[in-house]
Amino acid sequence: MKLGSLKAGRDGKLVVVSRDMTQMVAASDIATTLQQALDNWEITAPALQQVYEQLNAGSYPAAQPFDSELMAAPLPRAYQWLDGSAYVNHVELVRKARGAEMPESFWTDPLMYQGGSDQMLGPCEEVALSSEEWGIDFEAEVVVVTDDVPMGCSVEQAASHIALIGLVNDISLRNLIPGELAKGFGFMQSKPASSFAPVFITPDELGADWADGVVHRPLTVHRNDEKFGAPDCATDMTFNFHQLLAHATKTRDLGAGSIIGSGTISNRDRSVGSCCIAEQRMLETLADGKAQTPFLSFGERVRIEMLDKQGDTIFGAIDQCVTRK
Amino acid sequence: MKLGSLKAGRDGKLVVVSRDMTQMVAASDIATTLQQALDNWEITAPALQQVYEQLNAGSYPAAQPFDSELMAAPLPRAYQWLDGSAYVNHVELVRKARGAEMPESFWTDPLMYQGGSDQMLGPCEEVALSSEEWGIDFEAEVVVVTDDVPMGCSVEQAASHIALIGLVNDISLRNLIPGELAKGFGFMQSKPASSFAPVFITPDELGADWADGVVHRPLTVHRNDEKFGAPDCATDMTFNFHQLLAHATKTRDLGAGSIIGSGTISNRDRSVGSCCIAEQRMLETLADGKAQTPFLSFGERVRIEMLDKQGDTIFGAIDQCVTRK
Repeated sequence: MKLGSLKAGRDGKLVVVSRDMTQMVAASDIATTLQQALDNWEITAPALQQVYEQLNAGSYPAAQPFDSELMAAPLPRAYQWLDGSAYVNHVELVRKARGAEMPESFWTDPLMYQGGSDQMLGPCEEVALSSEEWGIDFEAEVVVVTDDVPMGCSVEQAASHIALIGLVNDISLRNLIPGELAKGFGFMQSKPASSFAPVFITPDELGADWADGVVHRPLTVHRNDEKFGAPDCATDMTFNFHQLLAHATKTRDLGAGSIIGSGTISNRDRSVGSCCIAEQRMLETLADGKAQTPFLSFGERVRIEMLDKQGDTIFGAIDQCVTRK
Repeated sequence: MKLGSLKAGRDGKLVVVSRDMTQMVAASDIATTLQQALDNWEITAPALQQVYEQLNAGSYPAAQPFDSELMAAPLPRAYQWLDGSAYVNHVELVRKARGAEMPESFWTDPLMYQGGSDQMLGPCEEVALSSEEWGIDFEAEVVVVTDDVPMGCSVEQAASHIALIGLVNDISLRNLIPGELAKGFGFMQSKPASSFAPVFITPDELGADWADGVVHRPLTVHRNDEKFGAPDCATDMTFNFHQLLAHATKTRDLGAGSIIGSGTISNRDRSVGSCCIAEQRMLETLADGKAQTPFLSFGERVRIEMLDKQGDTIFGAIDQCVTRK
């Protein structure tokens, strides 16, 4: 099933969205917010699934037309956002561009940072920032959302804890990163609020395109009207989501509604393009000694979407403008 | 006023606690959870203050005896936990112990990391972990809790956004930190769930002991029955909470209920002791070439408390055991 949140208050209003993304209906008698649904997932998931099936069958008179503009992030605020960096060849490329070796351990021990989760932006909300000098970049990624996961969850157990799957634009401020990482405490100012595609979906929606904790579809990014890249999410993913989940739980439980990200999708095959500007700039640096593609300016638009084999949208699109705060 | 949360469901049940920490009363008609109160702080704060005054006057028949054992963390789960490192001499000491220079910029640009906030432990809850080999350490700190803070909040504006003040035990796994920080993405596995003193208080509770974004009282830590340290929170605090807040909002809004930490309290005067074991071990290393004080073993107890000038507890105590998960 597909679940989203209408813009309403701090936590949105939970809606079930039809498979073809044309209709939606509130399910307030089951749960008023997605967080509330996830807090009681064993009970709410089957009930929401029933609504979803009736909605797809066209038998919901109360349904209203779906509209991305009305949507908040599926979880407008969340209790946890942990972002991995599972496409290790991307990390290797970053290092190569600045002439540094990548430690061998990066191929076996996932990178993961704790992100801010108190404000998640909806798919069409503006990314409002104070300065272009910060080096504004998009990062297109896949995320999973968990139910309650106990500390020390194994890779094998992880599969059963993935409740939902979604798409994120993990906006990064590239020119703030070197200074911040040099301080040793990870990202904070360099990672402003992230944005999410309109709906989270249950894994079964992907059919055979979800296997072993990996999404087997390309993720397409447009910068303004130009295609920037469409790397395949299953290619070159060094750590699958089961491994990322196990990594995340080494020393902590994960509360229901924890969001775990894949990191920027990236393929070794450079002909498929990139899911962030930084990667494109690194390739230019390696080829020509300097980066040419600029970071985002105010007024530019970013569109992130995943289509199924039939060419239909799976999550709806992130389609947003960068603006001056 | 003093506010806490009884253990109940995922978010606890908001209670107003009397100044002398002997009585408490639910205020469900005002807000059922502390997060709900913070979400509507302008309306709820004055209403809760009235309850507090009546409770202190002894005119609340429904009041029940206060008991730390019944308490969850004031925010059992929060949307944001940002921990600073405002006692820079502590950071300098860490560096010195491993023979490294500290960058000069650390005196002017705060260190701050994004912590996990989906599970906050109550004052008497066990710190249950899988391995003593991780190097289990306490870190006694002061925190402030914000209302909604807009991006780009100035140091001057920050004062008005501090709704509440509390105490945290920011448990750290010292032997996991070097490997994790070397990866460059900050703390994650090395920072398990933090624990909180029973109540958050409004700044006015501290009277003259809250000035210019600084708490002017010592914070006392006991390891088992022995006093480990009682450094003064106002001494050697390089960045006050107003500065930490301004730093946190450079590129983001802060949602209501965001928790900002001071980092481990630390004074240059070593006779006052330390608020974490790591500092004690660094002093031993500098003096004798090796650390002698061990990190925590399963079964050990940590007590963190702040007393007012009269010797009365301000927040109640964190008093918890470390146990094997």
